[in-house]
Parts: sequence; C-alpha cells; structure tokens
Amino acid sequence: MRPDAFVFDAYGTLYDVHSVVTRCESCWPGKGAQLSQLWRAKQLEYTWQRSLMQRYAPFSTVTREALAYACEALGLELSVAQMEGLMGEYHRLALFPEVEKTLAALEGKKAILSNGSPDMLLPLVEHSGLRFDAVLSVDELGIFKPAPQVYELAARKLGTKSIAFTSSNCWDAMGAKSYGFTVYWINRSKAPLDRLGFRPDRVLASLDEILQ
Amino acid sequence: MRPDAFVFDAYGTLYDVHSVVTRCESCWPGKGAQLSQLWRAKQLEYTWQRSLMQRYAPFSTVTREALAYACEALGLELSVAQMEGLMGEYHRLALFPEVEKTLAALEGKKAILSNGSPDMLLPLVEHSGLRFDAVLSVDELGIFKPAPQVYELAARKLGTKSIAFTSSNCWDAMGAKSYGFTVYWINRSKAPLDRLGFRPDRVLASLDEILQ
Repeated sequence: MRPDAFVFDAYGTLYDVHSVVTRCESCWPGKGAQLSQLWRAKQLEYTWQRSLMQRYAPFSTVTREALAYACEALGLELSVAQMEGLMGEYHRLALFPEVEKTLAALEGKKAILSNGSPDMLLPLVEHSGLRFDAVLSVDELGIFKPAPQVYELAARKLGTKSIAFTSSNCWDAMGAKSYGFTVYWINRSKAPLDRLGFRPDRVLASLDEILQ
Repeated sequence: MRPDAFVFDAYGTLYDVHSVVTRCESCWPGKGAQLSQLWRAKQLEYTWQRSLMQRYAPFSTVTREALAYACEALGLELSVAQMEGLMGEYHRLALFPEVEKTLAALEGKKAILSNGSPDMLLPLVEHSGLRFDAVLSVDELGIFKPAPQVYELAARKLGTKSIAFTSSNCWDAMGAKSYGFTVYWINRSKAPLDRLGFRPDRVLASLDEILQ
C-alpha cells in the first residue's frame, strides 16, 4: 500500500557527513578520516546523552562540542577559524550520488525529519537544491532521535501516520519503527542490524531501491 | 564538607569491563581487544537508544544483544556456549587494583548505583567480596543513565542529596552533576572531558585519590 508521505533522515541518509574528510585532511594531513569518524561518533553520543540528561542543546552546538572533543582526543590543535571552516562544511555536505534522481522520480509528499537545528539544516537543504514539502527539525521539541516525540512530530506536521520513513542510521530506523512507521533502512556499508527489538520493513543497498 | 554518602558506578569504575578480553581472545585469537571494545561501545549505545525509544530492556539483555552485534560486525561466529561463557565473565569482572583498599579506608555510607540489572550486578558484587550499604540498579526505573531519575533513585534510597558520586564514565559523572551531586570523575585513561555542559568537582587519576 502506498504511504501518504515519504520522510527522510538527512545526515548520513541523503547527505554524506563524511564529506568533511577532505577539509579535515587539509587541516591535519593523515588524520582526516579518523577525525571525521570520531567527530560523528561523539556528535551522536552527545545527542543521546543530552536528551537523557534533559539538557538539550541545538545540533549546531552539539556538533561544535563533538569536534572540540575529537580534536583534543586526537591531539590536534583546533583554531577558531578551523572550527568555523569545518562547521561551514556542514552547510554544503555532498548528496549521495543516487539521491537527486531518486527523489525526482518519487511521487508523493516528501519531507526531511532531522536532528539538525534550523541554523544548520536549512542552509544545507537550500545549498543542495533539493525541494521538500516540509523540512522538520527536532529543535522545536528539545529532544533528539530516537525519542518517539520526534517521529510523532512528522505525523503531526504532515497530518498522517501513513508514513514511509527512510534512514541509513539503523537506530533511527528502529526508533521510527518503534513509533509505528513503515521503515526502510539504507545499509550502504553492509553493517549488521542493530539489536533494538525491531526490524525494518525493507533493507536497501542505496536510496534508488526505494523506487522498486 | 563531608558528604552523607559515597555512591559509585560499578562497570568501568570499580570493576574492569575489559577483563573479558582474555576470554574473548581465547575464543577468537587476535580479536579479543577489538571485540571487547566494540561490545562495550554497543552496550552503552543500546542503553541510550533504548531509553530514548522508551523500550527499556534489562542490562543483561542489552549486553547479550551488544555481544551478538559485535561478533557479527567482526565476522566472528558466536555459539550459545560462547555467549554464555562470555556473559559469565560479567559475574567475575576484576576489580581495579586500588579499589578494595580504598573502599576499606573510606568512612561513611557506601553504595553502588549501576545500569546493571540485579541478575548481573548482585552476583558480581558478591563474587568480588565488596560490601555496600546499598546496591542500586536502574532496573526498577526502566531507564538507563544518565537520566536524572537514576541519580534521584540514589538520593531517595539513601535518604539524602548530600552525595559524592564517583564514576570513570565521564557522561555518567556529568549526568550526576547535572542532577546535583558532588562528582568525582576517575580519568584512568587521560581522556578529554566530555562536552556536556558540566564539569566534575574533581578529576582523579585512580580511585585511591578520593581519600586525599
């Protein structure tokens, strides 16, 4: 059965967060990939920990804090100019190669549901040239994914629970499944399924398989 | 000012979770350290994600699920007997070397506050021979650290908010600080401070410094 709307995670799903590697590498040759991995891992940890502590901060703050941690952990000195340069990369993350064509071919309401605060998310979407019926941020809720309130926001704003939700972050897909959406997990890296008590409705190797 | 009670995290603080490495190594030579690291990382992620999803499962379940994930991710076949053997190691984790003497020398009420479910935590404490005024588990709350309800449980059960809380898990220390305890962070590995909006009252290189 066709869903009323298709909702997509942004970071890691449509946009490649590791497109920051090049700039990381130009700041600290030989350390780019490692820094990018640790930065992303801490960014996610902080979203979960702050949510549980009931100490929400916008994703732009969390992302800066995660970068500061990651640089200190790897022994890399981080100037203000470097931080601003790296944060700027989040406004122009690359789209995964199949995204533009797939979204153009997909009929129906389309929306983004993201941890990103509007100050990061809106410039990114605009820069990419993608068009959506809604770009929704957890920022108005003050809690991050995978809290059920986040998925409920999409249902409320789109006026339907008949939603197919797509994420490459398995825990995000499981959060959406737990809330009650139909869920597609994009498993580009052939990772194991996270053991969180749920299974996705479909596993895709890349976004274009959604059209099949 | 002397606190009414000293409360300790268990896993990683008093007990070394990486004492499972030897058994991991005997099952999968050359992979012990890597498996132990990934197992622990996933175990923590699942506590945060399940808490946010409002899908609590006991720490014994989460620990099994994290082990299954970690083995699959590293391409290691895991038999039921191996899983039970490795889970059994959690009942006899090694104490960090300074723990026994330090706790014996520390005057006042002493308690454990742990993510561990009673089926894991109580056999471990008994095996180690340590004695506490209370061994408290998040299990009765159905949510994991660093949710404020967890630290509130210690205040409620011990009948005081004048508590010095000690953890080697920085995010756990920050959760306790956010709730309002005096906090000692044991930083055995010289890690950077997590950027979660708080600072510990003291940073210790090992538990015995608590006596100074």
